[in-house]
Amino acid sequence: MTSIGIVGGTGYTGSELLRLLAGHPQAQVRVITSRADAGQRVADVLPMLRGRCELAFEDPAQAPLGDCDLVFFATPNGTAMEQAPALLDSGVRVVDLAADFRIKDLAVWERWYGMRHAAPALVEEAVYGLPELNREAIRGARLVANPGCYPTAITLGLLPLLEADLIEPSRIIADGKSGVSGAGRKASTGLLMAEVGESFKAYSVAGHRHEPEIQETLRLGTGQALGLTFVPHLVPMVRGIEATIYATLKRPGVDLTSVFAQRYESEPYVDVMPAALPVETRSVRGTNLCRLTVMEPQDKGVAVVQSVIDNLVKGAAGQAVQNMNLMLGLPETAGLDGVALAP
Amino acid sequence: MTSIGIVGGTGYTGSELLRLLAGHPQAQVRVITSRADAGQRVADVLPMLRGRCELAFEDPAQAPLGDCDLVFFATPNGTAMEQAPALLDSGVRVVDLAADFRIKDLAVWERWYGMRHAAPALVEEAVYGLPELNREAIRGARLVANPGCYPTAITLGLLPLLEADLIEPSRIIADGKSGVSGAGRKASTGLLMAEVGESFKAYSVAGHRHEPEIQETLRLGTGQALGLTFVPHLVPMVRGIEATIYATLKRPGVDLTSVFAQRYESEPYVDVMPAALPVETRSVRGTNLCRLTVMEPQDKGVAVVQSVIDNLVKGAAGQAVQNMNLMLGLPETAGLDGVALAP
Amino acid sequence: MTSIGIVGGTGYTGSELLRLLAGHPQAQVRVITSRADAGQRVADVLPMLRGRCELAFEDPAQAPLGDCDLVFFATPNGTAMEQAPALLDSGVRVVDLAADFRIKDLAVWERWYGMRHAAPALVEEAVYGLPELNREAIRGARLVANPGCYPTAITLGLLPLLEADLIEPSRIIADGKSGVSGAGRKASTGLLMAEVGESFKAYSVAGHRHEPEIQETLRLGTGQALGLTFVPHLVPMVRGIEATIYATLKRPGVDLTSVFAQRYESEPYVDVMPAALPVETRSVRGTNLCRLTVMEPQDKGVAVVQSVIDNLVKGAAGQAVQNMNLMLGLPETAGLDGVALAP
Amino acid sequence: MTSIGIVGGTGYTGSELLRLLAGHPQAQVRVITSRADAGQRVADVLPMLRGRCELAFEDPAQAPLGDCDLVFFATPNGTAMEQAPALLDSGVRVVDLAADFRIKDLAVWERWYGMRHAAPALVEEAVYGLPELNREAIRGARLVANPGCYPTAITLGLLPLLEADLIEPSRIIADGKSGVSGAGRKASTGLLMAEVGESFKAYSVAGHRHEPEIQETLRLGTGQALGLTFVPHLVPMVRGIEATIYATLKRPGVDLTSVFAQRYESEPYVDVMPAALPVETRSVRGTNLCRLTVMEPQDKGVAVVQSVIDNLVKGAAGQAVQNMNLMLGLPETAGLDGVALAP
Repeated sequence: MTSIGIVGGTGYTGSELLRLLAGHPQAQVRVITSRADAGQRVADVLPMLRGRCELAFEDPAQAPLGDCDLVFFATPNGTAMEQAPALLDSGVRVVDLAADFRIKDLAVWERWYGMRHAAPALVEEAVYGLPELNREAIRGARLVANPGCYPTAITLGLLPLLEADLIEPSRIIADGKSGVSGAGRKASTGLLMAEVGESFKAYSVAGHRHEPEIQETLRLGTGQALGLTFVPHLVPMVRGIEATIYATLKRPGVDLTSVFAQRYESEPYVDVMPAALPVETRSVRGTNLCRLTVMEPQDKGVAVVQSVIDNLVKGAAGQAVQNMNLMLGLPETAGLDGVALAP
Repeated sequence: MTSIGIVGGTGYTGSELLRLLAGHPQAQVRVITSRADAGQRVADVLPMLRGRCELAFEDPAQAPLGDCDLVFFATPNGTAMEQAPALLDSGVRVVDLAADFRIKDLAVWERWYGMRHAAPALVEEAVYGLPELNREAIRGARLVANPGCYPTAITLGLLPLLEADLIEPSRIIADGKSGVSGAGRKASTGLLMAEVGESFKAYSVAGHRHEPEIQETLRLGTGQALGLTFVPHLVPMVRGIEATIYATLKRPGVDLTSVFAQRYESEPYVDVMPAALPVETRSVRGTNLCRLTVMEPQDKGVAVVQSVIDNLVKGAAGQAVQNMNLMLGLPETAGLDGVALAP
Repeated sequence: MTSIGIVGGTGYTGSELLRLLAGHPQAQVRVITSRADAGQRVADVLPMLRGRCELAFEDPAQAPLGDCDLVFFATPNGTAMEQAPALLDSGVRVVDLAADFRIKDLAVWERWYGMRHAAPALVEEAVYGLPELNREAIRGARLVANPGCYPTAITLGLLPLLEADLIEPSRIIADGKSGVSGAGRKASTGLLMAEVGESFKAYSVAGHRHEPEIQETLRLGTGQALGLTFVPHLVPMVRGIEATIYATLKRPGVDLTSVFAQRYESEPYVDVMPAALPVETRSVRGTNLCRLTVMEPQDKGVAVVQSVIDNLVKGAAGQAVQNMNLMLGLPETAGLDGVALAP
Repeated sequence: MTSIGIVGGTGYTGSELLRLLAGHPQAQVRVITSRADAGQRVADVLPMLRGRCELAFEDPAQAPLGDCDLVFFATPNGTAMEQAPALLDSGVRVVDLAADFRIKDLAVWERWYGMRHAAPALVEEAVYGLPELNREAIRGARLVANPGCYPTAITLGLLPLLEADLIEPSRIIADGKSGVSGAGRKASTGLLMAEVGESFKAYSVAGHRHEPEIQETLRLGTGQALGLTFVPHLVPMVRGIEATIYATLKRPGVDLTSVFAQRYESEPYVDVMPAALPVETRSVRGTNLCRLTVMEPQDKGVAVVQSVIDNLVKGAAGQAVQNMNLMLGLPETAGLDGVALAP
């Protein structure tokens, strides 16, 4: 069994890591930290883990993270860049579920995240952990930047179109919708159920941090600079992301579904569906899957991609475990074989 | 008091008409029909109306609709075109909340609705009941085609941009989201709460009937033919529509909010908000309002409009009452002064 | 127009007062305070009130509350007992929507609310504002303690049974369920939609403050001491309270529905329904109504009462307006005539 | 691998069996029937199973169910009693997830289910499949009657109290709450999201079929006849049952939690929690667990039990798999080791 650590275990990505790793045949969480809950048993703080996790939260300053084979940072932005260097130096691999190492362009990162970067050299070294794009690099990586939730859904929806040079890159629309768990577990009036239940709205319309992440990933991955407008929306549900993506096709009559099917043929976690099937967030709930369709409605020259993921799994903890499996030489799908919980 | 009839009173638009007219100072529902519930007291079928409605449902064949000043059709598509002609002949004004008279182009209508039109001459006569576009024509109309829910939200969001010639009409994206009451009250597996609760999806991506309605309305209203891609989505909530609309600006630096504010300056039911405020469906719940913002995120040349309505009010029964008020010479806002129910 | 003040206008009971009073024909809010939002326009903080409220929040220390005819306290527990005395001295009537004056027994109050009472004399003077029990006393009152939400639903469900001496008072079960708006608008992890959405639980099972309130009200109102077990539950919805109440009948064969119908015959806001009709929270959404049924299932000697209210209306702001109307000699139903918003 | 058949695979209990058995190490579904969907691939009808189920639905008349080791009936009431006899005769074991064999008293069964029983002898033979009560009998059974969802939650909550003779059996209150998936997947106006979303109500207050099931099970299991009042409620969520149970204690001062803990000490799927922990339906979502607390609030002599299950797992398909494991001599927990999906 490989030995795993989690820094910041009381947020939703942390508890989702615990859920997934509880069923992992070759990895075991040995250390989990939480400043606020240090000393408490995990199963008392997160009762859904009763009987499945015997650990107690440890203070991050004392926790023996250096003894782990791999450490996940399930922390707010800005933490991993401070603490990862020491771990890496002692030979521990690191997957950061926050945004510290996702964007290579430091100036862009510092503008969107509002802080100076503490470890610029590691930004360069870090591998962007989208296995469908960077699988081989992830295998050898010491440090993986786990992608954002929207970027996962949207990048997977655009990659085949851009790689096959099928769309105009200059004006792409990505209309994203997320369940509320995407906003994390911090006390906030704006995320109370009485505020967001039974209502729907866009947010961050003027600009969202995931936009530069998508732009850079696709520019580095396909060599094409994008003109992308991304608007996220908040859905009155707990889990799930749907993105509907609109792009102008360069030529008519292409069998888009085949292009996608071929691109993702050997991918264990991308399911290209026939265009007639519904693309529902519940069809991936609890799983590491991205399900997709693509079509050109009424032959109007506009490709419409629908892409769904579970924001806490393929959009966070599941993809992190997929990256962990690759980094540690384990079977890529280990611990990730649950069937979607629907209804 | 003017005397009002409702054909088809047990669906959501019918019961919403009853809710709104229960508080109308100058109009009273005298006749309400329902084939299925004929003979039953309205308040027994719709308990929320107990104490507020003493009527019983009547059989449509016997009901004295001809004695009403105005009759609303809250029926499935295809009913009003059969029954409205006789009522109009006997001097009754008619507002159809279904789609029978919304589209002038009969060939388009027949293709999208899958039936032959029974009253082509009335299609020509009917006025499309969007007061913000056709107020004067509505005042004189015998027959008003009440707009669809998505078309109301989207048309109001595009009108100022097209009228002021600010956007390229050839490639507009309208990403619509609706609560489940928009699908009506028919028994259907696909609308069970266990199917659509806690999940999100697009539907009718290959083509939705509201697209030709929007296209024609804006073409007739602004003289510009649109290239419009419209994708509707189902939100796990009961009421509300949000549309996020994307269009390429023809020139930079226009104060878009001012353009909208000026266009809708004297409109009682369009609220142009500062771009920084959230555009939430709950902020219009139960009201006849359309709230809107418009902005050009990051000066990228793309206008983004957010538009919300209550699908059962401004998107159906409320707009129908607004049209009724205009047709009967009553104050336009009579019966429509509720404040949004939020939270 | 009478002149109204609201202390603490940004919580849910405060904004609901604004919603209801916006449509009141004889009362106008002239002053509204909020420490946190002082100086801001109400309509900027609560956008659903755009166009319906021109006030700005004022600092509580400076606000001219003394010029009002009546002031509502929509504040946390412990505020009204500090500030109401001065207002009362200057001739302003006061309705407290919090719990400061709800319980006559000071020792009980201080134990459950964890503070010393600042105005014991006013506790004695205050009238418990349940019009169905204390209408005449409310008319003459300077100070009204507006009942809690659960107590309103449960007390109305038990009153007819106790007054007619139909049930054993010694072992009553009240199983209450509330939407999340009942917990208020404070930032709290436990009320995030990601925590309480799509889940159901009981809370405060060991004891809830509303239990002594119900006990005392019914003891004072009927002369019978209760043995009451009350367990509240949190429902993943925004508004609404349902209580299912179980009590042992003293004798068989009583027409319980008639007893209730007679007791509430002239009550404008209690609707005793036939036992066969569903008692849904949505059937009172946005209204000041309590809808009830009572039955003895399978003649087993147990009375089962179902009672629903909108926790923010009959359970808070609506009942407060009803009390205001009585105190100021206005028609009891003024401003409270909305029809339930369903679906 | 044992070979499994499912009759009626398109309802929620059928698809949940597929979800659970997809991960079962020693059992494989070989045959699945559906009259309506015969010939269609399972993964086309239930897209969440894409990649995890290669079967097609077969016509029940032709399907080779006789070749299976065990067949689940996930059918409406009245089907298994017709079809199970032939299967049993050919040596196939049967688990009925419907109610055909749950109640020994035929007169009671026929009154509540409104039909004549087609296989009275099998009613006598059938074992009520609550492992916590009947584990040994289940091991040897040819035919298991899988318990209802409410009966599972409530029976487990009452068993320790009755077995230890701690409560008066004559007046027990069980207030049950269920997510909407409990009502199944049939098209029905009353279960539309627009009808049941954002609302709460009791139903079947005059009498529910699960009441005689609970009564008989506990009478047979403990020798005590119950006076039980059971009222079910519908919660606006998809999955989950919570029951709050009230019973009069015979004597004070008993450590109730210890009694429960001891009773369920070796049970893999009953989790007796400390009384201070919240008993949330989400804490068992997707799992076969029943989580419970018991307490005597304020020493009033009333025991209050909170019990939660996932209605589709421990309340249906999961318990059926647990029974299957016992009947086939497999490890009792095989295929049932998922961690709860929360949030």
